[in-house]
Amino acid sequence: MVGAGPGDPELLTLKALNRLRSGDVVLHDALVSAEVLALVPLSARVLNVGKRCGRKCITQQEINPLLVSFAAEGKLVVRLKSGDPLLFGRGGEEIDALRQADVDVEIVPGITAAVAAASAAEISLTDRRYADRLLLLSAHRAPGKAEPDWRGLSDSRTTIVVYMPGDHKNIAKGLIRSGLNGQAPCMLISKISLPEQQSFKTTLEALRHMPLLPAPSLLIVGETVATARLTEHQPVYRQPPQTKTGTENRL
Amino acid sequence: MVGAGPGDPELLTLKALNRLRSGDVVLHDALVSAEVLALVPLSARVLNVGKRCGRKCITQQEINPLLVSFAAEGKLVVRLKSGDPLLFGRGGEEIDALRQADVDVEIVPGITAAVAAASAAEISLTDRRYADRLLLLSAHRAPGKAEPDWRGLSDSRTTIVVYMPGDHKNIAKGLIRSGLNGQAPCMLISKISLPEQQSFKTTLEALRHMPLLPAPSLLIVGETVATARLTEHQPVYRQPPQTKTGTENRL
Repeated sequence: MVGAGPGDPELLTLKALNRLRSGDVVLHDALVSAEVLALVPLSARVLNVGKRCGRKCITQQEINPLLVSFAAEGKLVVRLKSGDPLLFGRGGEEIDALRQADVDVEIVPGITAAVAAASAAEISLTDRRYADRLLLLSAHRAPGKAEPDWRGLSDSRTTIVVYMPGDHKNIAKGLIRSGLNGQAPCMLISKISLPEQQSFKTTLEALRHMPLLPAPSLLIVGETVATARLTEHQPVYRQPPQTKTGTENRL
Repeated sequence: MVGAGPGDPELLTLKALNRLRSGDVVLHDALVSAEVLALVPLSARVLNVGKRCGRKCITQQEINPLLVSFAAEGKLVVRLKSGDPLLFGRGGEEIDALRQADVDVEIVPGITAAVAAASAAEISLTDRRYADRLLLLSAHRAPGKAEPDWRGLSDSRTTIVVYMPGDHKNIAKGLIRSGLNGQAPCMLISKISLPEQQSFKTTLEALRHMPLLPAPSLLIVGETVATARLTEHQPVYRQPPQTKTGTENRL
């Protein structure tokens, strides 16, 4: 089970790259970037088991036995998950299914979106001057499921990161209702670490009028956002200080 | 500003390794592992600016101008921070100092301890069956500073990770006082991802009687801990499924 990070293949860990290169079968989420998938050797079988996979969708109840059956065939299976496998994925359920089937699991962590967004925007998620805590939560709910519980989030010294914010107008309302200040700085970032990355820095109150950004996106709320280097709708993909080009020769 | 991850050099990102290899000067924390430092080329000047650096300690007020002055000399400076640079470090303050001096900054994220510990213990930090949220906080306080504020932490569907727990007896008391159940599963992990890694899985109530573990350590509290593969005091460093040996030839 390998974390693919936010999208930029250079943000894979060395261990993740090694595992990617050695898998017989790679099962990946819809959000894993094309740039990361390009690193899988041609000899491996690659399956998109993402929940957003075009017309024919696959459920979690189908993915679990698929993992087990490839393993039973003696294949080295790489389960590639965007970000980190154990944050806002279904990592726990897949691990349980594999344990029940006596399949050996190794988990390779990945750079999660909150941390990648903070680096891109140059926001310290915690900072003794502004923020003591970091709270990560997801606004994504299955259809018919309850809204996220925003209670207890009114602490101005907590940085809040909302994964998969979707309709951020409702989130802004929920956070303000929970007691957060409408003037609290916040930032929407979309397609973190990819060339298409874009971001808006605004306030909770004004967030209601912001357009939706392409998924995957992320919302960061808290005083530290005020220090962000990114300004409104600034494309932020930067070349590193050194001007080596081409991802391949650096990997 | 480069995240060194939890210690295992294979948990560096590809970008972090590239930056490490190209720096003229490397300033690192005391917690950056010897294995990671071994990847710095011999041509680079390496300085330990960790707060625990033996007899002669350096303050944040001394580190900031040091970074600026190396940059002013035209040096490519790598500021290497254990874990991720923007979580529980002084990343924000160093970025501010560098911006004020008009020094270009690039931030390379790192695998933070919470995520690395979850992978090692096979705990899903969020899991729709047990935990909707993840809260990261630090128990580390400068001498004379107030205790961390444990209020509002009594949500049983939040996984809580305490960085640098130090005296975990007090933390257990504080968390129980905040409303958490004394029977809540929790886990102490020390030296995550290194060969010396060790862990205890216990309950908040029983945590008071556990011995201190060597720093750096981490405390995870929440229902998901019950699913951990690690049991009490089990050394968990595992060889990956493939039996290639030697870190060097894999990097």
